Amino acid sequence: MCRWLAYTGSPVLLTQVLYTPVHSLIDQSLHSRLGAETTNGDGFGVGWYDAAPAPGVFRSIEPAWNDQNLRELAGHVSSHLFFAHIRAAIGSAVQQTNCHPFRHGRWLFMHNGFIDGFAAVKRDLVLAVDESLFPEIKGTADTEVLFYLALTFGLEEDPPEAVARAIGLVEACGRARGVQYPFQGTIATTEGENVWVFRYSSQGKSRSLFFTRDVRMLREQYPDREILREVSDDTRLVVSEPIGDLPGAWIEMPEASYGIVSRGGDQLLPFAPKSPSRAA
Amino acid sequence: MCRWLAYTGSPVLLTQVLYTPVHSLIDQSLHSRLGAETTNGDGFGVGWYDAAPAPGVFRSIEPAWNDQNLRELAGHVSSHLFFAHIRAAIGSAVQQTNCHPFRHGRWLFMHNGFIDGFAAVKRDLVLAVDESLFPEIKGTADTEVLFYLALTFGLEEDPPEAVARAIGLVEACGRARGVQYPFQGTIATTEGENVWVFRYSSQGKSRSLFFTRDVRMLREQYPDREILREVSDDTRLVVSEPIGDLPGAWIEMPEASYGIVSRGGDQLLPFAPKSPSRAA
Amino acid sequence: MCRWLAYTGSPVLLTQVLYTPVHSLIDQSLHSRLGAETTNGDGFGVGWYDAAPAPGVFRSIEPAWNDQNLRELAGHVSSHLFFAHIRAAIGSAVQQTNCHPFRHGRWLFMHNGFIDGFAAVKRDLVLAVDESLFPEIKGTADTEVLFYLALTFGLEEDPPEAVARAIGLVEACGRARGVQYPFQGTIATTEGENVWVFRYSSQGKSRSLFFTRDVRMLREQYPDREILREVSDDTRLVVSEPIGDLPGAWIEMPEASYGIVSRGGDQLLPFAPKSPSRAA
Amino acid sequence: MCRWLAYTGSPVLLTQVLYTPVHSLIDQSLHSRLGAETTNGDGFGVGWYDAAPAPGVFRSIEPAWNDQNLRELAGHVSSHLFFAHIRAAIGSAVQQTNCHPFRHGRWLFMHNGFIDGFAAVKRDLVLAVDESLFPEIKGTADTEVLFYLALTFGLEEDPPEAVARAIGLVEACGRARGVQYPFQGTIATTEGENVWVFRYSSQGKSRSLFFTRDVRMLREQYPDREILREVSDDTRLVVSEPIGDLPGAWIEMPEASYGIVSRGGDQLLPFAPKSPSRAA
Repeated sequence: MCRWLAYTGSPVLLTQVLYTPVHSLIDQSLHSRLGAETTNGDGFGVGWYDAAPAPGVFRSIEPAWNDQNLRELAGHVSSHLFFAHIRAAIGSAVQQTNCHPFRHGRWLFMHNGFIDGFAAVKRDLVLAVDESLFPEIKGTADTEVLFYLALTFGLEEDPPEAVARAIGLVEACGRARGVQYPFQGTIATTEGENVWVFRYSSQGKSRSLFFTRDVRMLREQYPDREILREVSDDTRLVVSEPIGDLPGAWIEMPEASYGIVSRGGDQLLPFAPKSPSRAA
Repeated sequence: MCRWLAYTGSPVLLTQVLYTPVHSLIDQSLHSRLGAETTNGDGFGVGWYDAAPAPGVFRSIEPAWNDQNLRELAGHVSSHLFFAHIRAAIGSAVQQTNCHPFRHGRWLFMHNGFIDGFAAVKRDLVLAVDESLFPEIKGTADTEVLFYLALTFGLEEDPPEAVARAIGLVEACGRARGVQYPFQGTIATTEGENVWVFRYSSQGKSRSLFFTRDVRMLREQYPDREILREVSDDTRLVVSEPIGDLPGAWIEMPEASYGIVSRGGDQLLPFAPKSPSRAA
Repeated sequence: MCRWLAYTGSPVLLTQVLYTPVHSLIDQSLHSRLGAETTNGDGFGVGWYDAAPAPGVFRSIEPAWNDQNLRELAGHVSSHLFFAHIRAAIGSAVQQTNCHPFRHGRWLFMHNGFIDGFAAVKRDLVLAVDESLFPEIKGTADTEVLFYLALTFGLEEDPPEAVARAIGLVEACGRARGVQYPFQGTIATTEGENVWVFRYSSQGKSRSLFFTRDVRMLREQYPDREILREVSDDTRLVVSEPIGDLPGAWIEMPEASYGIVSRGGDQLLPFAPKSPSRAA
Repeated sequence: MCRWLAYTGSPVLLTQVLYTPVHSLIDQSLHSRLGAETTNGDGFGVGWYDAAPAPGVFRSIEPAWNDQNLRELAGHVSSHLFFAHIRAAIGSAVQQTNCHPFRHGRWLFMHNGFIDGFAAVKRDLVLAVDESLFPEIKGTADTEVLFYLALTFGLEEDPPEAVARAIGLVEACGRARGVQYPFQGTIATTEGENVWVFRYSSQGKSRSLFFTRDVRMLREQYPDREILREVSDDTRLVVSEPIGDLPGAWIEMPEASYGIVSRGGDQLLPFAPKSPSRAA
């Protein structure tokens, strides 16, 4: 029940994407238009890639709109690929270890949505996490468990397969406990080069997800926009809710689909969870 | 640009007033209906009287809706007179020392509104604070300066006079600096026995302020409400925005007025600032 | 690697115990003399009983020595039985949900020490927690898991037995993973009437633990101390490290022992963990 | 009563200076050896220069030793000139706006020490701050007022003169109020190219201050140290307390002196405050 943003393309200062656009992600932390909650004030996180071996992650439990340190960081850190997430907590505690994006090695993972009936299924799900990964779970959020399930199922080798199996397990465990619609949400994950994004919910009514049109088309449409001339052709934003003020710049991802954003071209494909029996 | 509540009457657990009513003050921290901002997520404060020589004050920069410590405190502290305030910051930093209510000895003071052009007039106002009080200013909020001006002008002896002179000085200093409408807001102050509340703005369009009808009348109107049978006849709430679900329970304070809530009966009187020249 | 204090007896303002004594618990948060670490600045917690159905718990990640809200609370809340804990984190995150005391229903639980090799054994231990209790685990601290193990083993019926079985399981799981000395520490738990305290470590070199001599004896020894005349005969303090300046006021609990502090008289008994095989 | 560090030279990741050395600044936040207080747990700040027009500043009220965000930042931000400060508060509130370094335009300023009797002289000092600078004061720390006094007296044109006049005013105001030794401390300030450092106290017993020997000499002395081969000849550290484990690497700054660290060579000169009368 949150908002997120994934950026990949020419290196930019984070502030240009997070703060500059009209109705930016930071604005959305105070006044979201499409979200289930209008306020996303229960913490935030930013994860970014640079020359270091692992991505940096900055997380805070303060509302993003007022966090001075986020403002400083965003004005001084530039990156070719970063994730940002603002949180509206629905159950787990407001603490840094529950803020997205979550990190494992070079991987980042974030989510807008929830595992329904999480208290009832948490034990089952946690038991399915690989024993070697188990000690790395630092917080108590449903998304962190989902991330470690996906890692258990091979996220680092085949993200769509791993996410399909993780959500499949969530659905199987949830239904076994009587939860009608166990999963809801949009997900983004990356290893620092490619970005995988997913939109799916057990009910078929998923949280919104949008990506930007090809930059070359946007340049033709908005020849006066300086930012569009500055960024590379393969620059891409994926967001929970459109930011900025360029009508026609955004394409909504279809229900039950996933996308891969990479230098070699983007792909948009149908998505379906894999239930544990089918996966076995 | 905040919300506040003043309670006086039979001792109650804070939670009964802060959390229990439908559309309670804590709800208003997330979704205010009448306020200038819909989210009041920039900290909060509670001040309460008990047997101790000075009131207790609990303040935090977290959004009130998620603060577990406030929930604990409210479930264990009971008081016959308390103030609660939720903040939507408009300029000064989000830090505990800027959270209302402010305290001096046995006095508490809180405010919903602002001193317009505060950066421009702050120096003039601060210079007018009594030298012996000056070192007590702990934060950087406009309201804290207003409180120390009122103390300088005799708040402890004659609250309406002191507040009138403090706002009068704010208006004089503001206008000298070219500010059209220097003051806006509603104020509450108390020494632990009586509560003085003020509604005034230089523009004549003040933030809203409501107080409860006489409890005896409410009991007749709502004979089934248990809480109304429990509280004493002289119980009174003053709020920025009605809480609860009792139509007809609230009376709006008129523009440019002030009230005194005390055991000996309440008063409602017109309010006008006193300019420094008239005050001299 | 922390410090704690348990008070039971005449109702007192928390401040009289937490702040007033020379070398108080709050002083110890900055400068501990006997502890493994000299600074206990990674958060704190206070749990207290009053007329409410469950104890209040106030926890913060700020160093106790500087927390203004703790100072306020301690000056306004009085209780006949309360726990206070200051933390020196050794592994798990500094977050409120990892601060002691932990609460379940009317029970409080706190610990100075650690489960050695916790990352390696956490999964085994968590699996042993009763399924119905599992969703209540809110943080990631070793002590919280220990508490839920004790609850699983019947803490609410027989605290010494339950704690012996919980520590026995910790030792069995630890040794199975090659940990030489799996448990270290002192523990206090209460349901609001009796206080059970434990001192034990697998290595036989446990953290220190002291309790006060009988108040009647102290009164004879220190006839001029006003506080000793004020408190009831059955008032008792148990602490990690002596506070105050009364030589001879403190008795060290022996290695591998436990005590019960209750109105009907105190007991001091030997303590030994129960390994899972013996417990079965 | 704090600790600070100023680095200038080859661009390095902050972590190499803040965390890597044995007895690093972060260690000193827990266990200082030479400081007046052994724990510096009341917040911290880092200010760094990069290509952006103004330096970045990251400040937090958490103890530095446990701040995960500082760790992340230090592992991802590199700079040729940065300041770091850990705080042991002695009077003003623990809040971000009281954390060093303070910033104005391109300037940073930090201080280990205090203005004695600050409550008594604060009003006098604040009145001496230039009216145009007054609204920029965001916190309540003595050092921030000192910084704005130095700016008032021309810090941006002639730092030694401005600091001498600021401390001179502090001493004059303090003595007028009966304070025997009004100023104590070491100061660092920079505009991003040169670093000015000061060691002075009214009593002649100033807090310690050390700077590194010429890197070329250190390389001869420690030919095996890789870090010394990596950094440029003009790399320099100035610190409250030596860090690392290179005997002979540190020179103590004399009492009542100041230094300028710059590409064109360093200078070490005597320092004396200028009293207001002499300054006029």
